[in-house]
Amino acid sequence: MPEYTTASRFQLSGLCFLLQIITIILFAVFVRYGPESSPGFCSQVAACPRHLQTHPSVPLPPGFRDVHLQALLGFGLLVAFLSRYGPGSVAISILIMAFAIQWAVLIQGFLHFFLNGKIYVGAQSMVSADFCTAAILISTGAVLGRVNPVQMLLLTLMGVILFTVNEYILLSLMGVRDSGGSLTVHTFGAYFGLMVSRILHQPHMDKCKKQQDTGNQPDVFAVVGTIYLWIFWPSFTSATTVRENAEPWAVLNTYFSLAASTLATLVLSPILHEEGTLRMVQIQDATLAGAAMMGMAGEMLVTPFGALVAGFLAGLIPPLGFRFLMPVLCSRLKIQDTCGVHNVHGLPGILGALLGTLLTALATADAYGGRLEFLFPLVAQGSWTATDQALCQLCALPITLLLAMLGGSLTGEFCLR
Amino acid sequence: MPEYTTASRFQLSGLCFLLQIITIILFAVFVRYGPESSPGFCSQVAACPRHLQTHPSVPLPPGFRDVHLQALLGFGLLVAFLSRYGPGSVAISILIMAFAIQWAVLIQGFLHFFLNGKIYVGAQSMVSADFCTAAILISTGAVLGRVNPVQMLLLTLMGVILFTVNEYILLSLMGVRDSGGSLTVHTFGAYFGLMVSRILHQPHMDKCKKQQDTGNQPDVFAVVGTIYLWIFWPSFTSATTVRENAEPWAVLNTYFSLAASTLATLVLSPILHEEGTLRMVQIQDATLAGAAMMGMAGEMLVTPFGALVAGFLAGLIPPLGFRFLMPVLCSRLKIQDTCGVHNVHGLPGILGALLGTLLTALATADAYGGRLEFLFPLVAQGSWTATDQALCQLCALPITLLLAMLGGSLTGEFCLR
Amino acid sequence: MPEYTTASRFQLSGLCFLLQIITIILFAVFVRYGPESSPGFCSQVAACPRHLQTHPSVPLPPGFRDVHLQALLGFGLLVAFLSRYGPGSVAISILIMAFAIQWAVLIQGFLHFFLNGKIYVGAQSMVSADFCTAAILISTGAVLGRVNPVQMLLLTLMGVILFTVNEYILLSLMGVRDSGGSLTVHTFGAYFGLMVSRILHQPHMDKCKKQQDTGNQPDVFAVVGTIYLWIFWPSFTSATTVRENAEPWAVLNTYFSLAASTLATLVLSPILHEEGTLRMVQIQDATLAGAAMMGMAGEMLVTPFGALVAGFLAGLIPPLGFRFLMPVLCSRLKIQDTCGVHNVHGLPGILGALLGTLLTALATADAYGGRLEFLFPLVAQGSWTATDQALCQLCALPITLLLAMLGGSLTGEFCLR
Repeated sequence: MPEYTTASRFQLSGLCFLLQIITIILFAVFVRYGPESSPGFCSQVAACPRHLQTHPSVPLPPGFRDVHLQALLGFGLLVAFLSRYGPGSVAISILIMAFAIQWAVLIQGFLHFFLNGKIYVGAQSMVSADFCTAAILISTGAVLGRVNPVQMLLLTLMGVILFTVNEYILLSLMGVRDSGGSLTVHTFGAYFGLMVSRILHQPHMDKCKKQQDTGNQPDVFAVVGTIYLWIFWPSFTSATTVRENAEPWAVLNTYFSLAASTLATLVLSPILHEEGTLRMVQIQDATLAGAAMMGMAGEMLVTPFGALVAGFLAGLIPPLGFRFLMPVLCSRLKIQDTCGVHNVHGLPGILGALLGTLLTALATADAYGGRLEFLFPLVAQGSWTATDQALCQLCALPITLLLAMLGGSLTGEFCLR
Repeated sequence: MPEYTTASRFQLSGLCFLLQIITIILFAVFVRYGPESSPGFCSQVAACPRHLQTHPSVPLPPGFRDVHLQALLGFGLLVAFLSRYGPGSVAISILIMAFAIQWAVLIQGFLHFFLNGKIYVGAQSMVSADFCTAAILISTGAVLGRVNPVQMLLLTLMGVILFTVNEYILLSLMGVRDSGGSLTVHTFGAYFGLMVSRILHQPHMDKCKKQQDTGNQPDVFAVVGTIYLWIFWPSFTSATTVRENAEPWAVLNTYFSLAASTLATLVLSPILHEEGTLRMVQIQDATLAGAAMMGMAGEMLVTPFGALVAGFLAGLIPPLGFRFLMPVLCSRLKIQDTCGVHNVHGLPGILGALLGTLLTALATADAYGGRLEFLFPLVAQGSWTATDQALCQLCALPITLLLAMLGGSLTGEFCLR
Repeated sequence: MPEYTTASRFQLSGLCFLLQIITIILFAVFVRYGPESSPGFCSQVAACPRHLQTHPSVPLPPGFRDVHLQALLGFGLLVAFLSRYGPGSVAISILIMAFAIQWAVLIQGFLHFFLNGKIYVGAQSMVSADFCTAAILISTGAVLGRVNPVQMLLLTLMGVILFTVNEYILLSLMGVRDSGGSLTVHTFGAYFGLMVSRILHQPHMDKCKKQQDTGNQPDVFAVVGTIYLWIFWPSFTSATTVRENAEPWAVLNTYFSLAASTLATLVLSPILHEEGTLRMVQIQDATLAGAAMMGMAGEMLVTPFGALVAGFLAGLIPPLGFRFLMPVLCSRLKIQDTCGVHNVHGLPGILGALLGTLLTALATADAYGGRLEFLFPLVAQGSWTATDQALCQLCALPITLLLAMLGGSLTGEFCLR
């Protein structure tokens, strides 16, 4: 967090106070807890801003509350991921998280309001807000250390709105299936942050120096973050795919992916780094990449073998990206990337979306059994072929990239300058 | 932990051994696991030492076991909170926790024994002991660094007994509703510890210096502690309010409170601290204050907006308290407060109790629906008005303060000198 | 992790790549997710490689998925335990974990393949692989700092196979009950690692110096590790003993054991260490010893008092072992033990197995009620007396020791030299 003057300190304090007051007033006017007997936030398929759109009347599965806890632990690791810039960056990350959650509940509620005329809040809208907050935290990873807290708050303000629009278009209008957020969380978050970083580029100030040379303390965070990731990310990725009496494919595939991506680090690291010591941050990056890879495909892979191959490939991306891609990005495209979100979230997210598209095209009732109705209800009902669904999933990628990059440019240009 | 001599080392070792042997013998004579088919520890309403007194015959909800896990994680953060005094303080905190749990199971069991003639132990008594241990850990936060381990053990010995008496009076005799422990845990723990600290004041030794100037390492604990708090405290606060098929109000309100209290830090911190850097411990304090605020009111708030306002106010207390109140407390009242438990637990706990009282007075069947019977069974049955219940909740505050302060004085005077 | 040359770096990278490719190919050929309606991995009692062999047709209890999460958290702490050798050791531990999970799923699957002709993978096989990985991580604790990553991978390769053979003999052929792995995890892991360490002894290089004198940073890991242990190990120990509508004895006993073993540290530490400061690693060691003690006996103890006594005794072992046993082991038997696995896992594991045997011999239908059928189905059916079962449990100890020590010697001699 850069040093700031007395004026900017009061500006930050005032803006923060204003935002909290506005949020409180909007909550007071619009937001209520859902009635006791209602099925919750997502009572109508068309307007459901989150992944539950295919089974609106199904009651919350047991353990849904815990899923929220685990989702929040997902933040723990993201915060640990952001900590590589130093301990101060953790403080600001948690503040961003606190604001983003409130704001996301509100904005996603407003979307619902315009469609249905009321805002009901419950455990489901909290999970929904968690996904949004994860995307915002990824975005901040690209600009950390070069923006002040006021700009961070404005980035959050705009990012949440754009995330909600993108998610609504993809999940509700187009019927795309992306339960773990390969597209909506990882790809959107990464490219939104990268474009903001591009706009904020200051030629005389920034230098394309290596980022990973931090001291000893971030290693502590990296260890805790990696363990968190291993434990809680599989559940985060599969938060909305819980089903009774079925093997949790999304969870198992994510574990296999994490295991393979971690080993991929050990394959590349001794070759790329002459000093030959393995850093915890490298393992944490590989773990995050392996998780981003399984965001869309996790619940679609029918064999553990596929998860191992995909995870291994995902684990190769961060070391190669940090070594070969980041210098080019920085010197040619003037995009700085403090925490390497492009290597860790952007590229693995895109690859995950492509893998998910491929698997969608190959989806058959034979392979999926009863899952098909859960995953692709329109295909199961016969009103759509698997190829139609795959085309739809494929179209979601350029739409997300467009919205993230356009939105990031406009946010950087008009809000953060 | 102050250095201690050979004599005191053997004294500590001997006392610890003695306490463990006594505990083991008492366990051997009195404590048994509950029979397979029994409804557990709280089979009779009148004698139930913990919050389950309103629904004794209801079986344990699924996930109750996990609740215990999460309660223990609550300790994780309290231990992290105590760590601001240095790494050695964590070691002693965990020892206190280990002893307090055993002792609390025993003392709460004895209460049951005198009332019912047997001690049965199960998952419920473990949760009950967890709440007690949390209060003790808060108390130790006030005296950390100025008492030796032997005194810590004696403080635990007496604190557990007083906590059990206070809880029995409030929850069982008076029928007060305090599921998250605004009064029984936070207020009791803080003022008990503060009075012990007052008695142990040594004019020539203690100086009213600022406490928050610790090195770099506690920041690591503060980060881990804050993330733990965000994840597990909402469940701790609502451990005994779990209901099937209902939105978990206590959990959601606590989340909103945490989010608002965290932002409140960002509002005040740049104004109060000229150096302008945000410390993680400040965020951790705000988070704890936001949680203490929701202890009683969490399950009673019917709108998220109320939780945001209450959390925001709670988040303002610690920074203001550390800046303006603590020097006064120290110089005028001779009360030192190592970890600032008065700002973080005491005042927010009192405010939370007042808010809970207000909400109780406003409770109507319209607003609460089916929850009313769960929250205030006597009001729902019509044998009591909401005002009666509110008066009862209000009376609980001075009783708790009296017991905590009187008990703390006597403990400090007669046991720890 | 010792420095390694360019040649050995490429050797490591190549071996790692090769192992991952072989694993992927074997997964591709043999491993599939279980069919939707199948009862999972353990459909036949005789071939079930893990503890579920006594109730194959029972569906997964709710929360089983979470059990896996908690099992993985068990790794968190083991990794923290290994971290005492320095931050680099955490990185290699996580890599070993990533490889061991894949390899364990495969090897345990192969066992099933030879018996049943197919490999089905699901949540149960993941839990099974977690137990195996825990044993491997314990083994690596004995040799950490004196072997290179290539040797670590080979140790994992062989250790997983031997663990699977030992577990198959004990649980499936002999019908031994060891739900928390006193024998299969702690004893096997410790003695396997110690024998490898013995074989790798290099007289001119190794010196029997004290190990616990590490810097400040491991204390952070020890704090986090101990809190993890307290929260998640009780569930790990009782992962396969979950039953509906019954007090979770295994969980409660483990908690009581942890509490007593932690206090035991405070009894011994002031006497043994003149400097008189309590180190977090000592508390972590005591916690692990208390957990290892309850591995087999946790679900068999009918009174909390027994758990307190057993835990207290277990907590005395690590401080005494580090002070008196380790120098002898090192100077006489030429066995170095980097992380003290003999004190923390080996001896408490053996004691736990003996306690479990004693409790088995005393098992009666009166004391256990409906649990007897769950714990010892053959005894409950009357086809076996409790004494038979106890003899069987007793024989498991020398078999495990033999397999671990013979296997460790051969692995050290032929694979790691």
